[in-house]
Amino acid sequence: MKLYDAGRAPNPRRVRIFLAEKGISVPLVPVDLAKLEHKTPDFAAVNPLQESPALELDDGTVITESIAICRYFEELHPEPPLFGVGALERAEVEMWQRRLEFHLFGTVRAVFRHLHPAMAEMEVPQVPAWGEANKPRVAAFLGVLDRHLADREFVCGNRFTVADITGLVSLDFMKPAKLSVPEELDNVRRWHAALAARPSAKA
Amino acid sequence: MKLYDAGRAPNPRRVRIFLAEKGISVPLVPVDLAKLEHKTPDFAAVNPLQESPALELDDGTVITESIAICRYFEELHPEPPLFGVGALERAEVEMWQRRLEFHLFGTVRAVFRHLHPAMAEMEVPQVPAWGEANKPRVAAFLGVLDRHLADREFVCGNRFTVADITGLVSLDFMKPAKLSVPEELDNVRRWHAALAARPSAKA
Repeated sequence: MKLYDAGRAPNPRRVRIFLAEKGISVPLVPVDLAKLEHKTPDFAAVNPLQESPALELDDGTVITESIAICRYFEELHPEPPLFGVGALERAEVEMWQRRLEFHLFGTVRAVFRHLHPAMAEMEVPQVPAWGEANKPRVAAFLGVLDRHLADREFVCGNRFTVADITGLVSLDFMKPAKLSVPEELDNVRRWHAALAARPSAKA
Repeated sequence: MKLYDAGRAPNPRRVRIFLAEKGISVPLVPVDLAKLEHKTPDFAAVNPLQESPALELDDGTVITESIAICRYFEELHPEPPLFGVGALERAEVEMWQRRLEFHLFGTVRAVFRHLHPAMAEMEVPQVPAWGEANKPRVAAFLGVLDRHLADREFVCGNRFTVADITGLVSLDFMKPAKLSVPEELDNVRRWHAALAARPSAKA
């Protein structure tokens, strides 16, 4: 088994944090996104959609999509549970994972990829108006999130889950996107600090 | 239990198809998106993100996000399994559900929402250049999908799954987005026809 990784990019980091929380070690194969290594024919043979991360099993089967890779490890190593326990909790983890992915990760990503000059080769065409349109969406979602976190340690209550991982990488992704969490959102700031202080955050 | 629905919109339809495949009946509460009912304070009390569908349980708990609602029912009614069986199959269903969601549903949605005049009130601001930028992405993904389907009945092999549901609603969503599947993509066309012929497709 080997995991095609990609340094500081947020999606591979989600998987590394997940594995660190599970205490699982998987050999990493670096893919240099800055050199567009994911666009090479060699990597297209691994993932025709040319995205990292990708998990290659010993029989050659490839699983892509960060959350699909995490779910594979959750099935193989259920402890500690990071996708919830029981029908309702699993649905809530899925709900918050998706809310954070679409309304925070996706919006921050749009700001970064469509407005950052370093992304001109990666995001073709850059559409600056689309980047700008996402800035108020980031802010609006952070407001909803702050109210939600007022009486919760983690986004799904008392249990750290994969939804928190998506939250952490999204908040950290705001820095290269030149966005910041408004000062008054105390609950988001407290949550971000707690996630960033976990040993897994360094993965 | 009641399900906030929204007529022809693709996300509520995903849940209705899923329930039909499971043989589950849930009372529907219509939400008229054309009248922006999802933007009212009443609906914001159900879902602060103001999106449909939303499942309200008898104790008032609300689950939003189409795939989270589907997963809740999968946990309660495991047969027939629509999220896969076993670690690898579950990871593959998650992978294809996400690939279809990001690379087909999401790209078709961007074309529709940013280029269709009827969306001017719903998608603020419309960014036509972003709609145009997604057209070649739809085409590129359909090419990858066609090659994948060459030797498979469904997107994850012999078993119909929630990933096929996302595929069906995405392909049907192409019509209002004024997109069409290229003639030469025989495998996508055969798959689309087979999914559309299932009784659940009318849900």
